[in-house]
Amino acid sequence: MIEKLKFDKRGLIPAVIQDEKTKKVLTLCYMNKEALEKTLEEGKVYVFRRSKNALMLKGSTSGHIQLVKSIFVDCEGNSLLVMVKQKIAACHAGYFSCYYRRAAADGSLEIIEEKVFNPKNVY
Amino acid sequence: MIEKLKFDKRGLIPAVIQDEKTKKVLTLCYMNKEALEKTLEEGKVYVFRRSKNALMLKGSTSGHIQLVKSIFVDCEGNSLLVMVKQKIAACHAGYFSCYYRRAAADGSLEIIEEKVFNPKNVY
Repeated sequence: MIEKLKFDKRGLIPAVIQDEKTKKVLTLCYMNKEALEKTLEEGKVYVFRRSKNALMLKGSTSGHIQLVKSIFVDCEGNSLLVMVKQKIAACHAGYFSCYYRRAAADGSLEIIEEKVFNPKNVY
Repeated sequence: MIEKLKFDKRGLIPAVIQDEKTKKVLTLCYMNKEALEKTLEEGKVYVFRRSKNALMLKGSTSGHIQLVKSIFVDCEGNSLLVMVKQKIAACHAGYFSCYYRRAAADGSLEIIEEKVFNPKNVY
């Protein structure tokens, strides 16, 4: 499967992470080949964190890991969809999904989720 | 809202497109500022097609456009989630979603959707 994927110039492929139960899109992350291999081996989402230039288990600090249920490949082989069981919440800001802000008609951003945890107590 | 977004070095931001009714993730596309402005103005998804280096209405050839229901911004402001009403199908290969292939345990890709249309009759 990995051989059919098109990693970009940085060696990364974007992966959309979706919660299997709620069908909520949780986040968009990036994997390099090693992150994808670890994800497949362990059944937990590993990401390549661009800001740290490092391979990381998603949720390694908070314990809010993502258990892999299934992985889908797009028509072009240049992105992934990873269906997961999310522990607690996906977002470091304390929300279940990273997409907790909706663009309102006036251009402002409206928070549309309740906080699931307090980041100050977790990080 | 646009001012709060982080476009990458190419001036692009990734946008996850999700079908509002089925909650299926349809595709991952890229928008530049102009594509996002047109999307907001017209209520239809416009993309920056990297392979053509051009702004395009998604579905302009096939008629399979995506009507925008709502737009969400991630915690970092570096990706979007666009909830849409998908006309017919999102994928040029004839499937409703671009993620019509699931990675099997043996590493092969298994087609898990039925074709919605025949690409030969559309393109």
